Amino acid sequence: MSAATQDIEALIALMARLPGLGPRSARRAVLHLLRKRDLLMAPLADALARTAATARDCTICGNIATGEVCDICADPGRATGEICVVEDVADLWAMEHTGAFKGVYHVLGGTLSALDAIGPEELRIPDLVTRVTDEALSEVILALGTTVDGQTTAHYIAEALTASGVAVTSLAQGVPMGGELDYLDDGTISAALRARRRF
Amino acid sequence: MSAATQDIEALIALMARLPGLGPRSARRAVLHLLRKRDLLMAPLADALARTAATARDCTICGNIATGEVCDICADPGRATGEICVVEDVADLWAMEHTGAFKGVYHVLGGTLSALDAIGPEELRIPDLVTRVTDEALSEVILALGTTVDGQTTAHYIAEALTASGVAVTSLAQGVPMGGELDYLDDGTISAALRARRRF
Repeated sequence: MSAATQDIEALIALMARLPGLGPRSARRAVLHLLRKRDLLMAPLADALARTAATARDCTICGNIATGEVCDICADPGRATGEICVVEDVADLWAMEHTGAFKGVYHVLGGTLSALDAIGPEELRIPDLVTRVTDEALSEVILALGTTVDGQTTAHYIAEALTASGVAVTSLAQGVPMGGELDYLDDGTISAALRARRRF
Repeated sequence: MSAATQDIEALIALMARLPGLGPRSARRAVLHLLRKRDLLMAPLADALARTAATARDCTICGNIATGEVCDICADPGRATGEICVVEDVADLWAMEHTGAFKGVYHVLGGTLSALDAIGPEELRIPDLVTRVTDEALSEVILALGTTVDGQTTAHYIAEALTASGVAVTSLAQGVPMGGELDYLDDGTISAALRARRRF
């Protein structure tokens, strides 16, 4: 039994479905919102409703957009000759946050996975091939995770793009910034050794 | 710089103000919502808007209500002769969750605190004294935290209710269920020893 009304219980159940929030922390978050009804709860409701109504997938790259194409694809200052292929919008945001990449993106929406029966058609791989064929590209950068599925996907895409003749590269693997060797796994150290460069 | 639009950045900033979510986890939560726009984001926006519009403080006990009085105060099955005094709505929910208390509540809205300049008038203590004076009560149970401020508040209320002649009790202090002595602090063990009972 609970002291909260049905509406509030329903709200807690919805909040508990967010990543990082469990039933207890969702309850705590809702209580916090209830205490700040005018300052936080109502503005949050508005922001969510507005975003739910306007957000959509960019028809070019798959990023979150509010119109037909996303801010990045619509930006004339971006180098359209370079496409960075990422698994997910979260990865796009992480890459964008560095400010190191000035090209455009292609969001796959996941990785190939035999286990989960996710093939190229489930991802936006055919779109990528079409894009590479249609546009004059200098480079496709594969910024996929160094997991088995990520690397399988990278190999599949590299294969699929061979015919187009575009340069396909992938992010360097090695010791992360601030990384200490004795805390790193063998795979990372081996990869960093193989990819060693002149100092 | 970020790849998200202004609307989404504003939404992330609002989410980051929830307890238990920081900037990174708020971003992750918003991405999750963006992926589930119809199934989760829109219903959550609705639930928040509805709750923000209808939720209010119960005029009797201070619990969250959707009408003039809360579900508990409106329930004819509750023993109105027993009032359980709690600091916060969260504490009321915790107490209610046990199902062990069949009386009604009084939510103070915090504890007395010299440091934060919170006196009896800032809390709902005068309301409590009025309630105890006006209604025929058998018992006032102080279910306040065993912090310095919580205990100060308990003492203050017990003092303020002396004239009314009502029985004022407080929750027992002792070893929590499943508690092991060597993990407990000295204060808890001493309190449990002082309050020992015949086996």
